[in-house]
Parts: sequence; C-alpha cells; structure tokens
Amino acid sequence: MAACIFCKIIKGEIPSFKLFESEKVFAFLDIQPLSQGHALVIPKFHGEKLVDIPDEQLAECLPVAKKIAKATGAENYNILQNNGRLAHQLVDHVHFHVIPKPNQQEGLGITWPAEETNMDKLKEYFNQVKAKM
Amino acid sequence: MAACIFCKIIKGEIPSFKLFESEKVFAFLDIQPLSQGHALVIPKFHGEKLVDIPDEQLAECLPVAKKIAKATGAENYNILQNNGRLAHQLVDHVHFHVIPKPNQQEGLGITWPAEETNMDKLKEYFNQVKAKM
Ligand SMILES: [Zn+2]
Ligand SMILES: [Zn+2]
Repeated sequence: MAACIFCKIIKGEIPSFKLFESEKVFAFLDIQPLSQGHALVIPKFHGEKLVDIPDEQLAECLPVAKKIAKATGAENYNILQNNGRLAHQLVDHVHFHVIPKPNQQEGLGITWPAEETNMDKLKEYFNQVKAKM
Repeated sequence: MAACIFCKIIKGEIPSFKLFESEKVFAFLDIQPLSQGHALVIPKFHGEKLVDIPDEQLAECLPVAKKIAKATGAENYNILQNNGRLAHQLVDHVHFHVIPKPNQQEGLGITWPAEETNMDKLKEYFNQVKAKM
C-alpha cells in the first residue's frame, strides 16, 4: 500500500521512535500520545482490520505489546485495537495501542454503557454467532 | 485460582455461552454486553495482567478474537484488554473484549485526550523505555 503511513514507517521512509522490530512485527511510540509510553504494535503485513490479517502474522503482536507494557513499568494500562471509523480507527493499517493509564486524566478514556443481562436475547444471539464460527 | 470466576467458567463450574475452546484459549459471550456479540477471549492460563501471561499462552488469543469478529459480521469493532482498576479491569484474569460498534450509542465509548506532539519529551521517554526493552 504505497500511501499507507504505517507501511512507510516500517520501510523507514518516515522516521519513528522504533521500540521493536522482527520479521513480522514493528513497534514505535505514538507521536500524539494519550500518556507517556503510549506505543503502537503493528503487523508488517498491511491490512485494514483485524479480520484482514493472517493468523500467523498476528501471533507475535501480543507478546510484543507485553514486552512494551513491561518496559514502561505501568501498573495500569490498556491494549486497544480499533476497527473502522465508528470504532475510532484513524489509520487503515491494523495497530495495537499500548496505553499506560497513570491517572484519571491521562491515558485512554473509557465509557461502558453495559446492557442489563437478558438471557433470552443472549441465547438467541449466541446461536446466531456460534453458527458462523 | 480457586476464587477466579473466569477459571470457574473454563472448568465448566459456572455455565457460559461458549463460542470457542482449544488447549490454551476459551471464548464466551459477555453477559453484560456493550453491544450484541460482545465476547471475551481468555487464555486458560490464570494471570492478572498481560505481563503475567507467558508468550505461548498469548499467541492464539488474537486469531480467536478475529474469528469471533468475523462471525459477528460487525464492520466496526474494538478489541480491548484492560489491566488494573484504573484502566477499567474488573475481573483479575486477563481477558480480551471483542466489542462490535454498531452505532454511536452502543459498544465501547472512547475518549482520546491526546497530547500535542513534543519531540523533546518523546525522545527522552523513548530512551528510557528503549533501555528497558
Ligand atoms: Zn500499511
Ligand atoms: Zn482465573
């Protein structure tokens, strides 16, 4: 993908604060961080959403996110991967945010509009999803 | 961990809407969903935070999350793993949320208090983190 900013970062055509690189994975600091140590872990394989990345290109992403989380020393942190504009994805190359949460103000802000438990509804939806697995 | 609710779900001591199970991973519907299809993917290995899970127990989590995302048919969705109370973790067994985002109201709510880019600060923090990788 010639126009993809993350593919350019992987190739070194755009400089980055590179934290890690292997055959399949690249990681660097986010330059508009939500908190100190906010980093991105990306598969080198270009794909827009999680469902577009082959399994073998995904396997190393969490071990690398873990390595970074450990290096930041954060006690509280979020791992987040957004798919689609409505879900807050801005760059169309799969990326996992590692976001330390040092206090209420900094880091990822989350709101959690949970539905009440409805067993009938859950069961119906379970059957639908299970049939497609 | 005798008292862990997710370990009990894995063992079948608490029923669940099980979507997937392998040697290392278990997945089921969240019973207080943020949206239809909201599911949890967990390593069977008990650990509180991402840094507590061995790499080989993590490798399959994203492929399973992907499988579920695909089965829900969602176009927009978030993958989220919270570590620590401040970061919105409620159950102390690592879990990856797969949360469809069908519209503004349902699904995960995100606020993004990004800092302005400050190259000096980034460089300083980069050196600190890099040294610990
Ligand atoms: Zn790309
Ligand atoms: Zn457990």
